Amino acid sequence: MAENLVQDGRRARGDATRRIVLSSATDLASVEGLDGLTIGRLAGSSGRSKSSIATLFGSKEALQLATIAAAREIFIDRIIVPAREEARGLPRLVALLQNALIYSRDRVFPGGCFFAATGADVDSKPGEVSDAIRSATAAWYAYIEVQIDTAVEASELTVDAEGAELLAFHLIALYEEANSRSLLMRDDRPYALAAAAMTERLIAAGAQQGLRVSLEE
Amino acid sequence: MAENLVQDGRRARGDATRRIVLSSATDLASVEGLDGLTIGRLAGSSGRSKSSIATLFGSKEALQLATIAAAREIFIDRIIVPAREEARGLPRLVALLQNALIYSRDRVFPGGCFFAATGADVDSKPGEVSDAIRSATAAWYAYIEVQIDTAVEASELTVDAEGAELLAFHLIALYEEANSRSLLMRDDRPYALAAAAMTERLIAAGAQQGLRVSLEE
Repeated sequence: MAENLVQDGRRARGDATRRIVLSSATDLASVEGLDGLTIGRLAGSSGRSKSSIATLFGSKEALQLATIAAAREIFIDRIIVPAREEARGLPRLVALLQNALIYSRDRVFPGGCFFAATGADVDSKPGEVSDAIRSATAAWYAYIEVQIDTAVEASELTVDAEGAELLAFHLIALYEEANSRSLLMRDDRPYALAAAAMTERLIAAGAQQGLRVSLEE
Repeated sequence: MAENLVQDGRRARGDATRRIVLSSATDLASVEGLDGLTIGRLAGSSGRSKSSIATLFGSKEALQLATIAAAREIFIDRIIVPAREEARGLPRLVALLQNALIYSRDRVFPGGCFFAATGADVDSKPGEVSDAIRSATAAWYAYIEVQIDTAVEASELTVDAEGAELLAFHLIALYEEANSRSLLMRDDRPYALAAAAMTERLIAAGAQQGLRVSLEE
């Protein structure tokens, strides 16, 4: 009984350290890339000891994978979960695009979109870390595509299958460009341009006039 | 006289080493980022000694700046120079887009577009290196915008000033997305999608039906 309490206490402290370290790790990786995620740097930014971080995560690769999983949770919380309050199809698609632009603009991660920041880093390095980024990105693309398909079935958009694939590519491209250009040029204007271009593109794909991708929360 | 010959010989050898080292450096930075550009790694990939590289470039920052200048020359040679054979305005704009897609697809740099690969790396680090990437990228955007403005003046496109800014953002976004998605997903399809989406977007902006952004050289 007493031993259980001690173990529970240790586990709780371990969980708290894990949360704190992973929160530093997602921020750090968004700026320095997953390669820049060293146990030494992380000890500095999280205020925990190197040995406790090493004990919690074991290897650098395990730390990178846990960081990606933590970033994915934040991405889902900020972008997907609130969009689920909207009806499937066009309303949810618009909510996803808006939430993504706002998540990038508000620097939920200091280096902008976590997956854009780390994707360029891992694309030419095979392995589990690269696979984890690829699979998170593919899931995001697929979720956008499902909303477009649903919108087409409901006649909220009027494009054929090829047009639907192009539309998804287009909308994601506008989001990515807003994120990267805003970071490089240190300017918020790319978000307004992306929102206007998304609106224009959705109306060209058959959305009713008056539909608007908006950056106001 | 003899001394001049010796000096000329040294200079010629220095220039040859410089060219070889910079060619390795642009390739390496496109994969590892500008931070990954260490004199040690470069000695390994270029087959030159660390001391000769250090003598030629002095500091890591000077090496990074020389690498950016060398990449910029290659970008201009591959994309801008051949597009200048086309008339200003829409024909040159289409040539620029095609050349950019082909340059990325053909991996002129193993890590894809040099400026996309290094931009994400330097965006949150102030300094001369970051400024050099920003200024090269801004010059590329501006060149695209000038072609759009010229096409509008010649009535090859029919958009207002706001529409022209959006169109430029749009076309560049499609190029960047093709580059990054093809690298991450190890797939050439994004280039075909980007070319089709560019074609669609130019026709929506008033280009004559039948205009086509093509990936055939």
